[in-house]
Amino acid sequence: MAEVASQELLLAAAFVSDAQYNRNIPFKTSPEAVRLYYLYNRWFMRTATYFFIFLNLSLAVFEEPAVYPLPFLATSLVEVLCLLVFFGRLMHFAKITHRNVFWKDTKNICIMVAILLSLTDLAIYGALRIYNIKSVRWSRIVRPIFLINFAESRQIRRAFRSIRNTLPEITYVFLLFMFSLLMFSLMALKLFGERNLQTAEGLPYFRDYLEIVFDLYVLVTTANSPDVMMSQLAIQNILQFIWKMALFCLFPRLSAQQVISLSSRMPAFDFSSWYALFFIAFVIVNTYIFMSLFLAVVYNNYKKHLKNEIRTLAYMKRRKMIEAFNLLKEEEGTQFVVREAMWKQLVKLVAPDISNSHRELLLRISDDEQKGFIDKKSFLQLADLLNIQVITLKIRSHPLGQWMPRVYRSAVSQFLRSVVRHRGFVWTYDVIILINAVFIALDEESPYISYAEWVFLALYIIEILLKVYTYEPRAFFGKNQFWNWFDTLIIFAALTATILNTTLKSTTKYNSQRILDIVFILRVLRLIRIVDSIQRFRVIMNTLINIVPTMLTFGGLTLVVYCIFAIIGMELFHGKIQFFPPNSNAPYALECGNPALKDSLFARGKYCKNNFNNFASSFIVLMELTVVNQWHVFANGFANVTAQPAKLYFIAFHIVMVIIIVNIFVSFILEAFFVEYSLEKSEVETAIEQKIQELGMGVQEEALQDEQLLDNMESPDNDLEGEGGTKAQPKGLVFKIASKPHACLQ
Amino acid sequence: MAEVASQELLLAAAFVSDAQYNRNIPFKTSPEAVRLYYLYNRWFMRTATYFFIFLNLSLAVFEEPAVYPLPFLATSLVEVLCLLVFFGRLMHFAKITHRNVFWKDTKNICIMVAILLSLTDLAIYGALRIYNIKSVRWSRIVRPIFLINFAESRQIRRAFRSIRNTLPEITYVFLLFMFSLLMFSLMALKLFGERNLQTAEGLPYFRDYLEIVFDLYVLVTTANSPDVMMSQLAIQNILQFIWKMALFCLFPRLSAQQVISLSSRMPAFDFSSWYALFFIAFVIVNTYIFMSLFLAVVYNNYKKHLKNEIRTLAYMKRRKMIEAFNLLKEEEGTQFVVREAMWKQLVKLVAPDISNSHRELLLRISDDEQKGFIDKKSFLQLADLLNIQVITLKIRSHPLGQWMPRVYRSAVSQFLRSVVRHRGFVWTYDVIILINAVFIALDEESPYISYAEWVFLALYIIEILLKVYTYEPRAFFGKNQFWNWFDTLIIFAALTATILNTTLKSTTKYNSQRILDIVFILRVLRLIRIVDSIQRFRVIMNTLINIVPTMLTFGGLTLVVYCIFAIIGMELFHGKIQFFPPNSNAPYALECGNPALKDSLFARGKYCKNNFNNFASSFIVLMELTVVNQWHVFANGFANVTAQPAKLYFIAFHIVMVIIIVNIFVSFILEAFFVEYSLEKSEVETAIEQKIQELGMGVQEEALQDEQLLDNMESPDNDLEGEGGTKAQPKGLVFKIASKPHACLQ
Repeated sequence: MAEVASQELLLAAAFVSDAQYNRNIPFKTSPEAVRLYYLYNRWFMRTATYFFIFLNLSLAVFEEPAVYPLPFLATSLVEVLCLLVFFGRLMHFAKITHRNVFWKDTKNICIMVAILLSLTDLAIYGALRIYNIKSVRWSRIVRPIFLINFAESRQIRRAFRSIRNTLPEITYVFLLFMFSLLMFSLMALKLFGERNLQTAEGLPYFRDYLEIVFDLYVLVTTANSPDVMMSQLAIQNILQFIWKMALFCLFPRLSAQQVISLSSRMPAFDFSSWYALFFIAFVIVNTYIFMSLFLAVVYNNYKKHLKNEIRTLAYMKRRKMIEAFNLLKEEEGTQFVVREAMWKQLVKLVAPDISNSHRELLLRISDDEQKGFIDKKSFLQLADLLNIQVITLKIRSHPLGQWMPRVYRSAVSQFLRSVVRHRGFVWTYDVIILINAVFIALDEESPYISYAEWVFLALYIIEILLKVYTYEPRAFFGKNQFWNWFDTLIIFAALTATILNTTLKSTTKYNSQRILDIVFILRVLRLIRIVDSIQRFRVIMNTLINIVPTMLTFGGLTLVVYCIFAIIGMELFHGKIQFFPPNSNAPYALECGNPALKDSLFARGKYCKNNFNNFASSFIVLMELTVVNQWHVFANGFANVTAQPAKLYFIAFHIVMVIIIVNIFVSFILEAFFVEYSLEKSEVETAIEQKIQELGMGVQEEALQDEQLLDNMESPDNDLEGEGGTKAQPKGLVFKIASKPHACLQ
Repeated sequence: MAEVASQELLLAAAFVSDAQYNRNIPFKTSPEAVRLYYLYNRWFMRTATYFFIFLNLSLAVFEEPAVYPLPFLATSLVEVLCLLVFFGRLMHFAKITHRNVFWKDTKNICIMVAILLSLTDLAIYGALRIYNIKSVRWSRIVRPIFLINFAESRQIRRAFRSIRNTLPEITYVFLLFMFSLLMFSLMALKLFGERNLQTAEGLPYFRDYLEIVFDLYVLVTTANSPDVMMSQLAIQNILQFIWKMALFCLFPRLSAQQVISLSSRMPAFDFSSWYALFFIAFVIVNTYIFMSLFLAVVYNNYKKHLKNEIRTLAYMKRRKMIEAFNLLKEEEGTQFVVREAMWKQLVKLVAPDISNSHRELLLRISDDEQKGFIDKKSFLQLADLLNIQVITLKIRSHPLGQWMPRVYRSAVSQFLRSVVRHRGFVWTYDVIILINAVFIALDEESPYISYAEWVFLALYIIEILLKVYTYEPRAFFGKNQFWNWFDTLIIFAALTATILNTTLKSTTKYNSQRILDIVFILRVLRLIRIVDSIQRFRVIMNTLINIVPTMLTFGGLTLVVYCIFAIIGMELFHGKIQFFPPNSNAPYALECGNPALKDSLFARGKYCKNNFNNFASSFIVLMELTVVNQWHVFANGFANVTAQPAKLYFIAFHIVMVIIIVNIFVSFILEAFFVEYSLEKSEVETAIEQKIQELGMGVQEEALQDEQLLDNMESPDNDLEGEGGTKAQPKGLVFKIASKPHACLQ
């Protein structure tokens, strides 16, 4: 069909497809450009681009300082290859858009500059390397630009835009927060600074203003929570002393004995509790109020930005659909319409993989009165219609029922199937899962327990087979049957791994640790299924599963930030801290190979393995910094081995990652759950559902929920007790709208 | 006026006053009951109740284990007194309500049971004490019930209701969270448990299932973040060993040398990085997703509950107002109305302290067309009208202008006043504050700097005097001039303290540390004023100041939870851990007096001072537990000295305080700021403003903002340059609606 499609049809299909996937590429309308545009959007072109972006990013693993060192020539050749691919992709894009549009788009300029910078840096570094001069590969920082700026990663760009829009608002709050921090630091300096206090460790306490600011900033993150207050002990002693002196001065006639008894009888002057008030006030104001304020500002902007974004998208979508309509319209009476045949060809082009029956359903919705054409209003809905995942459930009789109908319909078989369909079947297996959990927790050594593992595996396999026997296999493994797929994969992977392990064990007399690990994890994962049995949990789990794709966006965002900070971190701190095995004889092995760390919390915490010596270690350190706890130990450790301003690196990371990105992530989860709590079906979804019900092809929701699996998929010749054919099902088909995340969150 | 008020009027006034303050007390309508009801609501009765509630709560400070020990007789007498007061208050309440209403209200039953329990316990404890048998004062736990259940603390009750309503929803999420925790723990047991791993400290690592669950629960709060992963080191070594063994087994023909070189050349099998994935997955799922989920659930319920609450309040208010209307209504033509005279008497009774002009304004709003009566619709608005804080700005000429008009209006005086009114004046003082900040941070020792302090004090006092000279004093110290009050108080307190300190120093040659501390704090607080100069900061600050009263509710909530946990904690852990001064000779001084703490993190962290030995210490420990960091050290420490299940106490506190109350607090701040961001004036407020503008008595908002202080308050005889009397100001009065927090947040 696609071969005979006219140029207009191809162009219109491109518009509709753009509208469907929210793409906003202003392509040229020449035949060649449209052809190139189709090629540009092919899945393999996009996948290849992503592949090379990640290849380029992962070069950091192989370049000095490397996790797996490769020769410079190899990495630079790969980098040049990646840059060539990026350039090619960009040229491809240039071919399909208008020249002035292309040059106005900052994305393209960014990519070109990044390519140029990378090449220049590579050339300089290579040249200097020949003369053995060590220089810095600074261009590695620009690599995440490719991830951000290629048109495919629209969502990451949107997240960055969201951050950019939040910045002005958050800056004000941040300044106020810094002001509060500086004020409290000044107070701390005045209250504690000039009294020669010592920490519990005997180090000077709260002497230097900048030190205090840093300590209190860390206290905001609660990372040094009780410790920073611990020199109360010292304060108390000194104040006790001062109190005694004051008693001497005020009542000179008291004997020394009397003074001591007086001051010991006066717990009212246990000042330390009063000084704790300082820290309590600080924590309330800065940790609780200001940190909530940051969340409030980020969340508020996130919501506002989301609204604007949706408005823009809707406008863009409508414009594209109107262009498509204008290409295909024909006059019909007083209005312009699109003929049914044309519409069908268009849908086939745009969505080649939807079934005929699904297409028929869409046509029935668009052409409500079966007039043979689609008017403008219905046509504009097409992109939204295509976006709604309608599950076509083909009502087929069970293949076994066709191959050996006598056996399949025998009384035993009927009974078996009714047992499987019974609610007790699910409950039985829930109990089995719980027993299995106990067995997993028990010791592995006893042979009975390892035999029990085989029993459980067998039970699970029987369950799956019984379900496939009862329900139609193609329905059981339908696109949206997440839990069925999950079960089957987990069980068969566990079966394979267990068999492999047993074979290995019987041949080599030794468990392979890695396979065992996988077996363990698979066994535990099996237990997740029990969650699915409880309605309330299922709702929460479904929301969580629905937001996973968008969470990947935050994964991308985090990746970009981590990459940049890891590369800077490696330049700043590479090799300063080394890890030695516990019984090493290297000099300063206990101080991570650096005498500057002697007696530091970093060395005492045995954190030497957390260093910036390669890309993987850097990522782990940054992950630990994201989790916040003990980050001051890292900051102080690395500041000790380089210079004090190195702390700024850690503070910057905290601001970017924890205050901004984690808060955006929290906002996203909040919004996702609020949407889920107050979910109303969109207008288009309602229209489709209505039509499905009108056509009598709907799945009874209750029946579905009650029976847990798709009972109604049984062929009509299979007697349905109780329900008694409420509606004729004309085409042996039922439709159901898949529950999906809210469009705005995708 | 109140003496001649009829019974109906008194009753109606009680209804209106109830509606105004959102009270919901179903009192009897008999003359005596109404009289008692007025007495019941008097400020001194309410204050006295609060006083005795807090007295009762603070008894914990004086009872064993005491901060300030008092004899048992004294504390028990005070307690009996408090209980008598509570009983009296309850009887008073019983007198004014119907009997069946009284006995249906769980609040009253609660209070009576609490009084009975307290008395019983007191009697038993006292009796046992005579025979020297030590028993537990278990009834102390019920004391917070008085704070919650007395009708005055409506807001705390509302917060508790909010928590109760959130519980079912949060329980589901919590169960899912626990399920995830247990699953991950099982996985950890399987992955790490059976390999004889050791922590960096050489202790067994991840062996016992319950230990793992606790460790991972702590990891969710990020308190033990990098440390719990640290035995990766050990894992790595063991896996390296296993890998070598596997190589031996798989390729038996390799020489030992070859195996070692192979395994050392294979950094690909640095398993530790792969195991870090376990922890990363754990932190993402449990710390980031589930903790956000808790916030989402709490916030969602908080919003929903707030909406219901407001709806109920509005209904209750309307009902009360209708009852009041029915009491006072008279027939006028076809409808029932309230006569103006009656209305005025009513308003005087309900709000005796509002000015005549303000009452006139309200009348003009209610009786729009000056018909001499108020119809039902307008009457029902009265409670809302009274709730809106209208600031009556009396336009008076400056008292100096009246006393010595010639001097006050002289050219010098005029110039001075225009200087003070100039924006540069504010800027100059901002610069002075900044310079002052630098001086504060500098060393105190130099005499020049201590002289500078006097200069700054003088400058600030001059500023206040100038402002009072320029603006009308009564307006300058108006009710809503928060910053003026703040400035003046801070400056005069600092002045007093500095003078006191200097006197003390010159007589006793010794600084009093406490006075110095106060001086320091006052000096630093002075700097806050600079925030007020920047518009954007002022908005945020105003929101913060507006929500302070409601934050006190959370203070009450926290107090209740702290009290209960402190009392339980003291019973469980009292005396188990002791603090000794650093150079004490007591046995086990380094182990907090308890050999069970030998080598524990608790003793090594020098946390001995954090114990449950008295009420104040308990509060500080609970505060540190609220901040979360290092809480596992506390939990382990106290579990070591008592029994392992003691950890449950800490987990319970974490769930109640951090997961529920902190999240409600965050929800409250989020909501407060969203309301602030999208603040629209209520219907009634708009009506008042309209009326104020109509009457030409409004303050130009812009003029106010520009001039920073209330310029328009100058009497009209004072020439206003530029503005040129845009509107006649008939009564020498202007009104302004005070910005106030959203009603629903109060």
